[in-house]
Amino acid sequence: MQAYGAGITVMQQGTVVVKVPAKDFLLRTSGIFHGGVIAAVADTAAGYAAVSCEPVDANFLTVEFKISFLSKARGEWLEARATVIKNGRTLTVVSVDVIVHLDTSEKLVATVLATFIKENQ
Amino acid sequence: MQAYGAGITVMQQGTVVVKVPAKDFLLRTSGIFHGGVIAAVADTAAGYAAVSCEPVDANFLTVEFKISFLSKARGEWLEARATVIKNGRTLTVVSVDVIVHLDTSEKLVATVLATFIKENQ
Amino acid sequence: MQAYGAGITVMQQGTVVVKVPAKDFLLRTSGIFHGGVIAAVADTAAGYAAVSCEPVDANFLTVEFKISFLSKARGEWLEARATVIKNGRTLTVVSVDVIVHLDTSEKLVATVLATFIKENQ
Amino acid sequence: MQAYGAGITVMQQGTVVVKVPAKDFLLRTSGIFHGGVIAAVADTAAGYAAVSCEPVDANFLTVEFKISFLSKARGEWLEARATVIKNGRTLTVVSVDVIVHLDTSEKLVATVLATFIKENQ
Repeated sequence: MQAYGAGITVMQQGTVVVKVPAKDFLLRTSGIFHGGVIAAVADTAAGYAAVSCEPVDANFLTVEFKISFLSKARGEWLEARATVIKNGRTLTVVSVDVIVHLDTSEKLVATVLATFIKENQ
Repeated sequence: MQAYGAGITVMQQGTVVVKVPAKDFLLRTSGIFHGGVIAAVADTAAGYAAVSCEPVDANFLTVEFKISFLSKARGEWLEARATVIKNGRTLTVVSVDVIVHLDTSEKLVATVLATFIKENQ
Repeated sequence: MQAYGAGITVMQQGTVVVKVPAKDFLLRTSGIFHGGVIAAVADTAAGYAAVSCEPVDANFLTVEFKISFLSKARGEWLEARATVIKNGRTLTVVSVDVIVHLDTSEKLVATVLATFIKENQ
Repeated sequence: MQAYGAGITVMQQGTVVVKVPAKDFLLRTSGIFHGGVIAAVADTAAGYAAVSCEPVDANFLTVEFKISFLSKARGEWLEARATVIKNGRTLTVVSVDVIVHLDTSEKLVATVLATFIKENQ
């Protein structure tokens, strides 16, 4: 998170938003965010969303995720909005929309579906 | 790739291997490779594998990928082995196994299925 | 669709709802809908949603989909609610929520992310 | 399985093969196997493969799967070849290749990555 300059801007039960400003090493030479960065930010936001549903401290591991890239991610910052859609006893499923902001407009650039498992179970 | 210290070690038609040495900023505090790094390396190797099947220069965009994490990725370097399983007119599908090396042993830590589209079509 | 007893109950631009009543051959012996049936109904609804965005007749092929099963699907009928989230020139991405109805309550049992390609392009 | 006319032709520890003959209700009007049928057969084979690794009877639920369709599935029968790639304490990950047979040739028509959870844990 720190290496990326990322920050959490919303953290409620079941909903987390993470923002990342555009920096050269996060962008392809064409000036758009790397797919790998988009996936990493989404995975991070999703993991925090999983944690946000737990009454006591818990650690989650990513079991798997699927990401669909919808548009080129050109803009000033990325925002990953993660929402828990199933908070099970062992597994938590999270949906994430990743938006890019450019000037005053925003665009959906990727959507993610991720599964987490509670550690030490 | 350069930021990661990554390098291509194999590049044949339909098969590409990318290696990444463990560096602090690629690891979680527990010393294992970040899931986001594993996904990014797999996506990169898969993209090169898609390109490797083209007779002339081509540019591919990642449409989507799915990654399953199988084991904790503790080791000295990561290796993503990408194989094209369908080289269509518009879309290319690539399978990637990600292995971690520790001393003389290796372990499968993730498997990826990715779809790419040829740009400017 | 006919073999399943399925019907389209909503068809607007970008949104399609398909319903399927519980019938023995669609259920597991434990009385819940088969995962394969849930996936098939979601894929069907998603395909119609892709078509619903086209001004003239178009044919779509499923490129891939990912389905997460969230709860056991016990109920009187299934409902797949498909929404187009990206209607590109070549590819269309559709999100589907699958709900099961039991008495007057409903429950989200699966969520799907699917990619389609326009045929003859 | 019976409704489909499907049968298991191989069942070893970690590897299961399921075959399904072409029947009208499994085919689209164009004569190719329905995507939903392909997904269902793959899910079934993968579930048996998960079970095949257990020393005692166990029940598995499908957590999620991702399927990529690679070619039109025109042929006399489908064959789903499932291989366990991770047999964890709680979760099992299975890879499935789905092949269609026509005369004496075979063609890879889909590939699947699926996650299962052991029930009653």
